[in-house]
Amino acid sequence: MDVLEPAAVDAALGAGVAWTREGSELVKTRRGQDFGDSLAYVTAVGALAEEANHHPDIDIRWNVVTLRLTTHDAGGLTQADLDLARRIDALSTTTA
Amino acid sequence: MDVLEPAAVDAALGAGVAWTREGSELVKTRRGQDFGDSLAYVTAVGALAEEANHHPDIDIRWNVVTLRLTTHDAGGLTQADLDLARRIDALSTTTA
Amino acid sequence: MDVLEPAAVDAALGAGVAWTREGSELVKTRRGQDFGDSLAYVTAVGALAEEANHHPDIDIRWNVVTLRLTTHDAGGLTQADLDLARRIDALSTTTA
Amino acid sequence: MDVLEPAAVDAALGAGVAWTREGSELVKTRRGQDFGDSLAYVTAVGALAEEANHHPDIDIRWNVVTLRLTTHDAGGLTQADLDLARRIDALSTTTA
Repeated sequence: MDVLEPAAVDAALGAGVAWTREGSELVKTRRGQDFGDSLAYVTAVGALAEEANHHPDIDIRWNVVTLRLTTHDAGGLTQADLDLARRIDALSTTTA
Repeated sequence: MDVLEPAAVDAALGAGVAWTREGSELVKTRRGQDFGDSLAYVTAVGALAEEANHHPDIDIRWNVVTLRLTTHDAGGLTQADLDLARRIDALSTTTA
Repeated sequence: MDVLEPAAVDAALGAGVAWTREGSELVKTRRGQDFGDSLAYVTAVGALAEEANHHPDIDIRWNVVTLRLTTHDAGGLTQADLDLARRIDALSTTTA
Repeated sequence: MDVLEPAAVDAALGAGVAWTREGSELVKTRRGQDFGDSLAYVTAVGALAEEANHHPDIDIRWNVVTLRLTTHDAGGLTQADLDLARRIDALSTTTA
């Protein structure tokens, strides 16, 4: 899968993908109600990740979950990252 | 913990607890978006259940989750069931 | 996807698939340590199910999880059921 | 809850608690089979955390999960951290 130009990624982000680009990663931070809410969100994200066979790094800090996406095999951001980012955005913002 | 009279349970249900009583059980059915949504909901319910050390029976049928609560030790419905029912109601209705 | 003959299903079960056939369903019951263990097992099964886009019915009764597989679209058991059954069997027997 | 002396923490670690101390945190890294396995492990850890009302920081990197425990309110490591560390150790090492 081809690595996307940063400008192409930024255009997608400008068009409604609710992530920020940090170098060769897409980052999303989600603040929920509490730890149980984070756990439910991570389960939902995990199910999408398994479906796509593409897996973000996931950090849980009680009510805050941070997701990081990149395509290690390609050495940068690819369409697979944007696709999964969009699917994760489609999860309800309050998950539990 | 004392078993509650059916009338006491029904009064609580009338006052906003979104479950139905079937004999000595409280039952809640929740229809979500899809299987991943159900999985996230069950994770959130499970976290509350562990916190309360009180565990509903849980059935997952793709986007539909059915929860059943009773207090086996007491042989009927108790305040523990109503308390957990209320906490589960407080989860967002769309979970993922 | 073609519905398999019951004899073909039973042959697969005889060759090491740890499920039982009940009519047009494969059924697996798994007894774990406690509720948290069941929850972890269901999350692992759910991840496989999302990956396969094929989803068992799942019932949780504290430390006991029952899974039921069939292919609704085909009206019976298919290769998709046997494949997912095998992948679920490959999960560690003690999950948490 | 009182902050424990580093020596007291190290004594507990020497006596079988499978975590390392990094300053005022206990850290455990667990390498599993794959992402689904990590997800199941995190669900099991999360259930214990909710039961204890004490929550580690959790990082998922595909098949590797890192847990960090400390007692923020106390400003250091307490008995609550050692208790939860032991309960997490009691989870099966292969979770899914």
